[in-house]
Amino acid sequence: MQCLNVDLADRSYPIYIGAGLMAQAELFARHIGGRQVCIVTDDTVAPLYLESLQQVLSDYKVTSVILPTGEAYKTWATLQQIFDALLAARHDRRTTLIALGGGVIGDMTGFAAASYQRGVDFIQVPTTLLSQVDSSVGGKTGINHPAGKNMIGAFYQPKAVLIDTDSLNTLPEREVSAGLAEIIKYGLIRDEAFLGWLEQNMAGLRQLDAGLVTQAILRSCAIKAEVVAEDEREGGVRAILNLGHTFGHAIEAHQGYGSWLHGEAVGAGMVMALDLSARLGWISAQGRARGEAVIAAAGLPTLAPVGMRASDFERLMAVDKKVLDGQLRLVLLRQIGAAEVTADYDVEALRACLQESEQ
Amino acid sequence: MQCLNVDLADRSYPIYIGAGLMAQAELFARHIGGRQVCIVTDDTVAPLYLESLQQVLSDYKVTSVILPTGEAYKTWATLQQIFDALLAARHDRRTTLIALGGGVIGDMTGFAAASYQRGVDFIQVPTTLLSQVDSSVGGKTGINHPAGKNMIGAFYQPKAVLIDTDSLNTLPEREVSAGLAEIIKYGLIRDEAFLGWLEQNMAGLRQLDAGLVTQAILRSCAIKAEVVAEDEREGGVRAILNLGHTFGHAIEAHQGYGSWLHGEAVGAGMVMALDLSARLGWISAQGRARGEAVIAAAGLPTLAPVGMRASDFERLMAVDKKVLDGQLRLVLLRQIGAAEVTADYDVEALRACLQESEQ
Repeated sequence: MQCLNVDLADRSYPIYIGAGLMAQAELFARHIGGRQVCIVTDDTVAPLYLESLQQVLSDYKVTSVILPTGEAYKTWATLQQIFDALLAARHDRRTTLIALGGGVIGDMTGFAAASYQRGVDFIQVPTTLLSQVDSSVGGKTGINHPAGKNMIGAFYQPKAVLIDTDSLNTLPEREVSAGLAEIIKYGLIRDEAFLGWLEQNMAGLRQLDAGLVTQAILRSCAIKAEVVAEDEREGGVRAILNLGHTFGHAIEAHQGYGSWLHGEAVGAGMVMALDLSARLGWISAQGRARGEAVIAAAGLPTLAPVGMRASDFERLMAVDKKVLDGQLRLVLLRQIGAAEVTADYDVEALRACLQESEQ
Repeated sequence: MQCLNVDLADRSYPIYIGAGLMAQAELFARHIGGRQVCIVTDDTVAPLYLESLQQVLSDYKVTSVILPTGEAYKTWATLQQIFDALLAARHDRRTTLIALGGGVIGDMTGFAAASYQRGVDFIQVPTTLLSQVDSSVGGKTGINHPAGKNMIGAFYQPKAVLIDTDSLNTLPEREVSAGLAEIIKYGLIRDEAFLGWLEQNMAGLRQLDAGLVTQAILRSCAIKAEVVAEDEREGGVRAILNLGHTFGHAIEAHQGYGSWLHGEAVGAGMVMALDLSARLGWISAQGRARGEAVIAAAGLPTLAPVGMRASDFERLMAVDKKVLDGQLRLVLLRQIGAAEVTADYDVEALRACLQESEQ
């Protein structure tokens, strides 16, 4: 088992990474203050792990809530189901919520914990590679509003994150690739040596070699934790974590959420950020090609979806208006391993980059 | 103008108290970071102050939201109206919310500020005496759930509190008395000299003499701020602020919320706490009589509602179960000016106290 401490003063917490952690009652016990526990999960994950986790936690009074699966249910109405269950089972302020699932479950359970009786403890047990390297670090919690994603929420830190790498064995291959997109991102924005390690070990990572996956998750979480510790509430440097995301969000909006996985859209989006960085002369053509190759090797798309045009990106990213106002800030690469947020680029270079991505 | 600093490290904020503060644009400007402002108020307060406040803030892009008045509307559905208005007018993370109204508006606006885009600034402008001395200090925000009051919320501090004593001139007499209940509470739990000052000046306070009211608000907020600074998240001593509230909540539940004002229920509840404290020999019969007299002088009830029996209190407070479990912790007085939270009292003394309050 590996352990990483996320250093946020009195909100610091450990991330445990290893095989079989979900069966270790003692790990949970270290971070549960009271006698009550509520496991929040979804109808995809519940059949796989809920019963065994309930048994591991049998020393406690355990309630569980099974929510419908997917981003479409990241709403107040679903959140309310958590509050209803907590109140029906008379959970008090000393209760601990456990988020068992992917990013959507983590975001909603975290916000429920932040808001129930003005704040109770919670523990994250992320079961997808994406949530293990992304949403389990950083304290962002929340729900969507019809007018925008993640518009309502809180910055709220868990007491601990337990990453059981065995949970990846049930993950579809596409979702493994989607998680690798975020892992590659950490190399691109902050750690060229880690990117080199990913290039060398990509085949083993895709086959879910436990040792390699543990290393990749550990380094990813460490990089994210470093960036978040520098800027907990996203005033500045934290924005570099959004490499490829502005393009990726446009892809997700164009395709309809759920048709491309978030990590897939970020994969194609990072190629666009690499391309624009090369057009501006920030990175070399070789650097661009290297980034694209590792994204492709992870099984991710490197071009925009079939039929999506440069003009679609411009419309969805409101390019004309935002570029002219200096408001379309993009994360670009000064070099492989060093990102920067900037609005200082030529709109024609951006247009050329968007066209380059068309199929 | 008087100014009091609530000392909570990086969440510290000032409370300004005085006549005409709502007209001082410069006071608001000190605490507004961006260019956008959203005034949240209700349909009772809006006709009195909204237009003039909009004019005072005319340097900013001002949105306003007018909610229905009353505790019955302290719900997610009403909160959603605030989020809808913020998103429709494209308020970003640099916006500032202004809570213009009583405790319900303050609680909901504070929670909206805590949750909108994971946290934006807010300023409290409490317009009732009760909210000026109670909910404007302490950072408790939230909404009700069908299964319980204030079950969903956050601890979230405002950037500033502006208490304009002129706003009391439009307040019904009953609501002035309700506010005085909480003011008397501060004397009883923490400051015998302040209680003496209240006894001497009660007539002038009820007539809303500006100098006296400012002094009473200032001392009340200072006492609450002291207690909250010792225990921001209500782990211990902060509970003494609930003197009379356990009895009072039973009265409110029995009568239906809104029929007795919260402050009225607390007034009668504090007499019951005084009575029980005397029965236990903690305070003298003279101390009990002194407390009851000042509560009566404020125009507050000193007995339970007509028709409410001791057995009603026992049922609503779950006396048998909770006393036996040691869970019914009450705030009692060791002496006038010194409160203590305890479950160490005789259930027969409690029963006698409940019967004493019957009419």
